[in-house]
Amino acid sequence: MTEEAPAKETPEKEKERPPMPRDVILVGKKPIMSYAMAALMQLTESGEITIKARGRAISAAVDVAEVVSKRFLSGSAAVKSVIIGTEVLGEPPRNVSTIEIKVSSKPKK
Amino acid sequence: MTEEAPAKETPEKEKERPPMPRDVILVGKKPIMSYAMAALMQLTESGEITIKARGRAISAAVDVAEVVSKRFLSGSAAVKSVIIGTEVLGEPPRNVSTIEIKVSSKPKK
Repeated sequence: MTEEAPAKETPEKEKERPPMPRDVILVGKKPIMSYAMAALMQLTESGEITIKARGRAISAAVDVAEVVSKRFLSGSAAVKSVIIGTEVLGEPPRNVSTIEIKVSSKPKK
Repeated sequence: MTEEAPAKETPEKEKERPPMPRDVILVGKKPIMSYAMAALMQLTESGEITIKARGRAISAAVDVAEVVSKRFLSGSAAVKSVIIGTEVLGEPPRNVSTIEIKVSSKPKK
């Protein structure tokens, strides 16, 4: 969780721009299944992914995590942690809620 | 999440009906601030609340938790845990994502 929301010198928008690490799935307005497929592929490759979203897309991020862990990889992947927070975005600045959901594949027995 | 669900014998709708414990705030379509005020009052009374929501209201539940812990009670309350899940609801049954956010007030130093 990001406890502080002090004024930042760099415009917050820039935080969206740098190339996302490959194991991060940033959920937006596309259909749930397109994120779920990307998450599935990345998870089988790297073993752990982080699903992130802001604002209204938070519900969709939860859907993606649930589809991947309960339907696609039921029993072989699980939600490891869920962190919520607040970011300051835009001009004029306003608070936007965020979520980060870590999903890892479980070692096979 | 929209996907087929296994047929259940008990209608899942009944799970919605029992009276909500007072320290549970079920977030729906009302404005964020009305839930945040209810959460604030309950939190000062009982020291811990659980904010719940389903489907599209999940984003609003995160907003409520963030407003209460960061703005209203900054420093004196914090998100303790966030749990996501899936419930089977409706006829025909379909899967709906859920969230449960526990917020507790911190003991004063």
